[in-house]
Amino acid sequence: MRTRAVVSIDIGGTKTLSAVVDPAGRVLSRHRIETPQTGPGAVVAALARSVAAVAASAGLRSEDLLGMGVGAPGPLDPATGVVFEPPNLVGWRDVPLSALLQEATGIRTFVENDANAAALGEAWVGAGAGVRDLIYITVSTGIGGGLVLNGGLYHGVSGTAGEIGHMTVEPDGPVCTCGRRGHLEAVASGQAIARMAADAVRAGRPTRLSALGPPEGLSAEAVARAAAEGDQLAGEIFARAGAYIGIAVASLVNVLNPAMVIFGGGVSKAGDLLFDPVRRVVRERAFERPAAAVRIVPAALGDDAGVIGAAAVVYRRGGELL
Amino acid sequence: MRTRAVVSIDIGGTKTLSAVVDPAGRVLSRHRIETPQTGPGAVVAALARSVAAVAASAGLRSEDLLGMGVGAPGPLDPATGVVFEPPNLVGWRDVPLSALLQEATGIRTFVENDANAAALGEAWVGAGAGVRDLIYITVSTGIGGGLVLNGGLYHGVSGTAGEIGHMTVEPDGPVCTCGRRGHLEAVASGQAIARMAADAVRAGRPTRLSALGPPEGLSAEAVARAAAEGDQLAGEIFARAGAYIGIAVASLVNVLNPAMVIFGGGVSKAGDLLFDPVRRVVRERAFERPAAAVRIVPAALGDDAGVIGAAAVVYRRGGELL
Repeated sequence: MRTRAVVSIDIGGTKTLSAVVDPAGRVLSRHRIETPQTGPGAVVAALARSVAAVAASAGLRSEDLLGMGVGAPGPLDPATGVVFEPPNLVGWRDVPLSALLQEATGIRTFVENDANAAALGEAWVGAGAGVRDLIYITVSTGIGGGLVLNGGLYHGVSGTAGEIGHMTVEPDGPVCTCGRRGHLEAVASGQAIARMAADAVRAGRPTRLSALGPPEGLSAEAVARAAAEGDQLAGEIFARAGAYIGIAVASLVNVLNPAMVIFGGGVSKAGDLLFDPVRRVVRERAFERPAAAVRIVPAALGDDAGVIGAAAVVYRRGGELL
Repeated sequence: MRTRAVVSIDIGGTKTLSAVVDPAGRVLSRHRIETPQTGPGAVVAALARSVAAVAASAGLRSEDLLGMGVGAPGPLDPATGVVFEPPNLVGWRDVPLSALLQEATGIRTFVENDANAAALGEAWVGAGAGVRDLIYITVSTGIGGGLVLNGGLYHGVSGTAGEIGHMTVEPDGPVCTCGRRGHLEAVASGQAIARMAADAVRAGRPTRLSALGPPEGLSAEAVARAAAEGDQLAGEIFARAGAYIGIAVASLVNVLNPAMVIFGGGVSKAGDLLFDPVRRVVRERAFERPAAAVRIVPAALGDDAGVIGAAAVVYRRGGELL
């Protein structure tokens, strides 16, 4: 039974995707639900139903599956499967997610940080297939990341590695969502881009963004669209965010000398609006040799990266443990 | 013959240390020479004599040795043993050091970046003995580093990983020795500390440093001594340098979640003058969980770190290859 499929889940703050994934990294079936907002018990019950549904639609029973992989918002401990206190899952605190899901489904379960799962997915069959050293960065409401080093996920001593959004890029910069000053997330996340746009509209700077309703309702997506349509202010905001991301990436290129940096997440769909300043700043600030060795590319798996990566966790960890 | 010793060399810009090291990481003999300044040929010839001398003083012949490990200034390729263009070795360019030394001595040779060698030495039998994930940072004239991740040296895709001195910590800061702006080395190295002191003396700020001769002759060591004796300006300069190091370390703690950060190099001998601001800024800027998991400590092997680490390279790489 070497070719058994696995079931995997990508838990998001608002939506959760379950999938059955085969050993070649292909998604055989998908099932999407709204993430219950009433605490971990409701989530576990909903996930158990979703897992049964997605397995059935692939024509499989629980006992046909090699295991279950779960990508969940961190911080969490991948070794124990305990989710500590994720900012975007209300009412979660020290939840033994792996044990709860295993009990609810009877399927051997492995939990991984969601950004790590996406990193592993991209490294397995996505933009980084075959690359041994890569950095995955997701730019959406916040900024997260995962490191694949020497061909495997790198976790660090307490399982929290990869917090690229919380590198300091401007020591006296604005306060971050985490409460500390000058982190990348505070100056380059979707939230930061929306805030910069709102501030500029309020300050009366000429931009088509001021026609889009109240400034506090602006999204990073709207800013990207305006920039793509030639709005100068929106372009400047993206250039500024991209330059800050470039500062962090240049430091990572000098320290980790990766073969690839992969960008996922909603804001990265802005494409060259974001990638051009990132690449320019990396050329300016990183050493020639590692800067020449790194490719800076968009993610390839889209919304499937998380479930494919969570499946990879089962094949990798489960291969040793089951 | 499982317990054969190795010979190892730590090539510095001015001095070079050779040693015989046993499989427990003990130094059996040492031999120190001035590094010839007349190009790689003279260095290789001098090293061959030094190796013969240090082996003889341990009572060993070449054929008794398992191999030779060399820590050399980078950038270099540890896989091929080619040293590219080290800024502090005059006349070196694309030197096949490993091949040249092997030919001159008949001993199988492995070359490693000097900061990586020191990192591995500290991880083997020094401050980080038994630690799987650690960052070694050397603060002397410049700032270098090495990463031990998952128990082994991490090189990156082109062998240049670990350039911690060239992380950006102040985007609009002073120009670094490498020509780029705002790198850690530009604001916290021994050279930067001496420059800040000289600038302050020239600006007429009250300090006992102004009594030590012309400001351009001030050393980081003199600044550390004055700070230890209570000189306020000297103390401020060290606090500033330490805070910048803390910014870089906090980013590394969030990204790599190491169990330990080890400081070596001359400037780190200033002790708490440097460590206090580093630890304070890490607490301020890093997440609680990884900040609580990391110990920030001085190196333990002193000037032997390089030769002990270069010996470890032979035991590790040679164990597979010989």
